[in-house]
Amino acid sequence: MTGRLGKSRARPTIHDVAAEAGVSRGTVSRALNGGQNVSPTALEAVLAAVRKTGYVANSAARSLVTQRAHSIAFVLTEPQSRLFEDPNFSILLQACTQELAEHDLPLLLMTASSDVERKRTSRFLAAGHVDGVLLVSSHTGNPLVDELLQFDIPVVTCGKPLGHEGRVAYAAADDREGARSMVRHLRERGRTRIATITGPLDTPGGVERLAGYRDVLGADAVPSLIAQGDYSRAGGEAAMAELLARSPDLDAVFVASDLMAAGALTVLHDAGLRVPRDVAVGGFDDSGIASTTRPALTTVRQPFERITREMVRLLLDLVAGQPPAAALLPTELVVRDST
Amino acid sequence: MTGRLGKSRARPTIHDVAAEAGVSRGTVSRALNGGQNVSPTALEAVLAAVRKTGYVANSAARSLVTQRAHSIAFVLTEPQSRLFEDPNFSILLQACTQELAEHDLPLLLMTASSDVERKRTSRFLAAGHVDGVLLVSSHTGNPLVDELLQFDIPVVTCGKPLGHEGRVAYAAADDREGARSMVRHLRERGRTRIATITGPLDTPGGVERLAGYRDVLGADAVPSLIAQGDYSRAGGEAAMAELLARSPDLDAVFVASDLMAAGALTVLHDAGLRVPRDVAVGGFDDSGIASTTRPALTTVRQPFERITREMVRLLLDLVAGQPPAAALLPTELVVRDST
Repeated sequence: MTGRLGKSRARPTIHDVAAEAGVSRGTVSRALNGGQNVSPTALEAVLAAVRKTGYVANSAARSLVTQRAHSIAFVLTEPQSRLFEDPNFSILLQACTQELAEHDLPLLLMTASSDVERKRTSRFLAAGHVDGVLLVSSHTGNPLVDELLQFDIPVVTCGKPLGHEGRVAYAAADDREGARSMVRHLRERGRTRIATITGPLDTPGGVERLAGYRDVLGADAVPSLIAQGDYSRAGGEAAMAELLARSPDLDAVFVASDLMAAGALTVLHDAGLRVPRDVAVGGFDDSGIASTTRPALTTVRQPFERITREMVRLLLDLVAGQPPAAALLPTELVVRDST
Repeated sequence: MTGRLGKSRARPTIHDVAAEAGVSRGTVSRALNGGQNVSPTALEAVLAAVRKTGYVANSAARSLVTQRAHSIAFVLTEPQSRLFEDPNFSILLQACTQELAEHDLPLLLMTASSDVERKRTSRFLAAGHVDGVLLVSSHTGNPLVDELLQFDIPVVTCGKPLGHEGRVAYAAADDREGARSMVRHLRERGRTRIATITGPLDTPGGVERLAGYRDVLGADAVPSLIAQGDYSRAGGEAAMAELLARSPDLDAVFVASDLMAAGALTVLHDAGLRVPRDVAVGGFDDSGIASTTRPALTTVRQPFERITREMVRLLLDLVAGQPPAAALLPTELVVRDST
């Protein structure tokens, strides 16, 4: 499935390739390693000799034979600083690196935030340096997905690829059901004025978690109780302040990420409101922040390990020629002190 | 210097390549993008047509012509988790990404911590997917440097490449003089029993900062005042506890990184010692932690921006065929409340 080749008993060596091509071993090495100082004629001779001898000793040669790069890119369509602000990204990165290591595949982290950076990254990916892409935090309308499809580069997104459903493989937590479980829990705690801080509404987590909130509240989900955040701590602070100004009688808030919830807790504290007595707060992720806030945050646990395992599995399936599939994974309500 | 090609007036298109090669445009695209389903014959025809027409529209084609990958790897020879623990690494990563963007070069982050991970990363780098490597935190004896040299891959290390001086380009803060300035400062504060927590002694920061400490203290640098840390917070805590047990009369400690110093402050606080009244504490880095500790940390500022700018400059020089050079950059003592 990973495209690794089986061992043969008498594998041709670089010497065989050099002899066949009529060039030095150094020339073969430079040709296969993309080095300088190889003439076009020598390059062609080496290519021919590689095919004739079946030389597959290193990945450059293997790539020429199998058309595989034997590497996977982890592409973050966010500014690089977010990698260090939001623990979700570091958790996904580390888990994907480990999972790929099980398949002896190196991971390359690249970012594609601005238009110009996206083009740079896309150009690199299109040049055949990777076998596939794990795409994290793709906003709707990000042209990167289309570019990867156009170049036939296998891609798996983390979260539903809005606008590309059915054409792009993905692994995701069941965001909608996770949100429902949290809002049901807040109702069971006797709360009646339940607000929400959403993620960006061009991201699957933004859309789906809001949908789950609406599913449970129905007509109680009035616009004055809904504020949009951007998954950052500062965004959570701004949205909480906005909600308090609009609906000072709110008694609960479901926040679509733990980092934003940490920001909301600060604003509630500064406004003299006690959590959970005056306002109950529920988060989403259980990414490490939730257990360190005061009070500790009730949240919806994303199954990060399963998500990454499924992302890698789906990607290797694509690389092996399978059609795109999806994995939707259950979340878990984790009750702590904030509700 | 970056190997980018100038614009020509009538640049051949992918159609010209297809016509010349006698294959479809799709075949040209797949061949240049390392895709599947291209026969060896077609691949050779496309290669020949690319050369004949001088087609350089994308980096795959450019790579075939110029033997350049048009990308740079940032390789961290540390466990990936350290990237998220120690702000030095995120500062370097972000600054290098920005600096490379100025040259329209994408950055690939790869890690090479364990032996098996190093081999995986080394294999990818040796296959010609990058033009050069920015190597961060290389311990002495890490075979990666030798492997890169062996494959003729341009490499610049951050910090002196111990054991490879003269053969490997590097940019570094003047660690030794930085350490001297801190220890002189502690002396000027009237301290007489000045201890030190070093970095790992197989890293340039570990060796050079200890040398600077010895330069100033001479015979006063007795073994009971020297403990070795590992640049982690936990390592700083352990080393501080060890020093207090060995030399309860110490009145100052120079710690070779801010993160270790933060750990040392916790241990001093828990031991009932006041900083700076009982024990003055000096760090190294000024990486963002220093201004958030209590008390705020006196430290030695590393010129991270200049270091990254010089690393990229030195690497692009190497890629352009220049011999390896080095840049040693001055540090600055930043006095806050801990001394």
